Amino acid sequence: MSSSRKPIDRYALGSQLTRAANASVADILAGFLEQPSHSAVRIGITGPPGAGKSSLTARLCRRRLTAGRRLGVIAIDPTSPFTSGAILGDRVRMEDVSNHAELFIRSLASRGAHNGLADNLPEILLTMDFHDFDEVIVETVGIGQIECAVRDLVDTTVLVLNPQSGDQVQAMKAGVLEAADVIVVNKADLPGAGKIAAEVESVIRIRGQSQHAWVPRVLMTSRQDESGLESIDRVLAEHLSWQSVHVDGAATRRIRLEYHLSTLLTRVGAERIRQLTPESLDGGLASAFKLLIDALH
Amino acid sequence: MSSSRKPIDRYALGSQLTRAANASVADILAGFLEQPSHSAVRIGITGPPGAGKSSLTARLCRRRLTAGRRLGVIAIDPTSPFTSGAILGDRVRMEDVSNHAELFIRSLASRGAHNGLADNLPEILLTMDFHDFDEVIVETVGIGQIECAVRDLVDTTVLVLNPQSGDQVQAMKAGVLEAADVIVVNKADLPGAGKIAAEVESVIRIRGQSQHAWVPRVLMTSRQDESGLESIDRVLAEHLSWQSVHVDGAATRRIRLEYHLSTLLTRVGAERIRQLTPESLDGGLASAFKLLIDALH
Repeated sequence: MSSSRKPIDRYALGSQLTRAANASVADILAGFLEQPSHSAVRIGITGPPGAGKSSLTARLCRRRLTAGRRLGVIAIDPTSPFTSGAILGDRVRMEDVSNHAELFIRSLASRGAHNGLADNLPEILLTMDFHDFDEVIVETVGIGQIECAVRDLVDTTVLVLNPQSGDQVQAMKAGVLEAADVIVVNKADLPGAGKIAAEVESVIRIRGQSQHAWVPRVLMTSRQDESGLESIDRVLAEHLSWQSVHVDGAATRRIRLEYHLSTLLTRVGAERIRQLTPESLDGGLASAFKLLIDALH
Repeated sequence: MSSSRKPIDRYALGSQLTRAANASVADILAGFLEQPSHSAVRIGITGPPGAGKSSLTARLCRRRLTAGRRLGVIAIDPTSPFTSGAILGDRVRMEDVSNHAELFIRSLASRGAHNGLADNLPEILLTMDFHDFDEVIVETVGIGQIECAVRDLVDTTVLVLNPQSGDQVQAMKAGVLEAADVIVVNKADLPGAGKIAAEVESVIRIRGQSQHAWVPRVLMTSRQDESGLESIDRVLAEHLSWQSVHVDGAATRRIRLEYHLSTLLTRVGAERIRQLTPESLDGGLASAFKLLIDALH
């Protein structure tokens, strides 16, 4: 299959992504981005720094490339070896993957959005969809409620934890586990991995599930463990086929459009707020807010 | 001094905070919150989960209460013992502090804002300012760029790291250290603390400083170390008096008002986006955005 495919046009894609990343809200509203007809499967990989998101991403990429898939990776995690270079020798293994002809990697500053994502992520993902990727992986750093944000833009959300994540799991009892479709306890060769996995399992079980909801799956893996990785691949495929039956495409499109509208409003709002004159703020909050709304027109 | 003071009216403050937390944007714009004449010194304490923010907060509170100050604590950290109970036996020590007559603690869900804060934090802080606190400490969980957000609302931002924060420091090279006025390497009795402190110091030094900027201070402390805590107290006082000379009060008020306007716009925007009919989205992004802006009026 991949032999009959046109190669990734790295030059065109690269410059389109740069254009998308730098597009003003006015550009975007003027319609420089058409709606793509193809849509890659999107996988979000999130979790606290040090959980091992990047090496898991690299390992997942390797398996999927071997299976003949074309992959894009958007790394918004500032600690990602994709973005910033060497951490603990991971770099070599990343480079090994990143030279593959069917893989395209782009790092993105987590600009503006304050939610660990980037305020231009919707444009970036739409741009990717013009280049015939089978899958796009979005790697983001996240903790607590913050990591929920990526969920709105991807098909499957993978939360990566490690045996040192005890405090994070504590935090997640507040309801964050709901945001993940698959929870991977990484570095499972370290002590405490089983305990974390059991805790996460029990949180999910306590929550209770409606009959028609996807029950988040908890998996363990570690560096050398190909069978753990295989299980993750299998669960990702299961989640996708579950979605094709249970999730309404129109609802997904609506959620993504809502997210996009909200980033655009935040961007325009920030611009207009900066433009408010000192005098216009003297009248107090309500009057300043009215001026802001007027300025949005 | 504290003997001549009226005690904290916990009942009134509690119900005012509940009202502020639940106020709709319409309520807020209708002016249910007046501008307080007094403004407590605000200290933001932020950092990754497990850094020891809450026990540091408790220890700072104890010292400050002993010095006769009236303190408020707003805890938005879902892992905070103030909020969620026992972590590693900290709870007992918190309770010990939290029964003090001059201390008022409120926990807040990190609702809506997606930046680790809460979208109603400006109203909560304004409400606190009607109750004659000397200081209000805002404890938030944060990593990477995300923790910058609290900076806009407080006078001094304290970033708490611990010797396991190596990856976070890596992330901060992207520019996040700029957001902190004081960086505390906690759990300094653990191996690696000196190394983290040195790394942070070198990042700050490399950045270079304009002559009139506050140079972030790096301090170490651990559970039993009162002299480290004393240094933190001293640096917090230094930062405050530095600010009184170098920071323009009008600029600070503007930043806080801008933050407030932006939370209100996000809240109203989210409401209006939800109200858009499916048909109104069929025309594509630009047309949906136009309808949204119209609906804001």
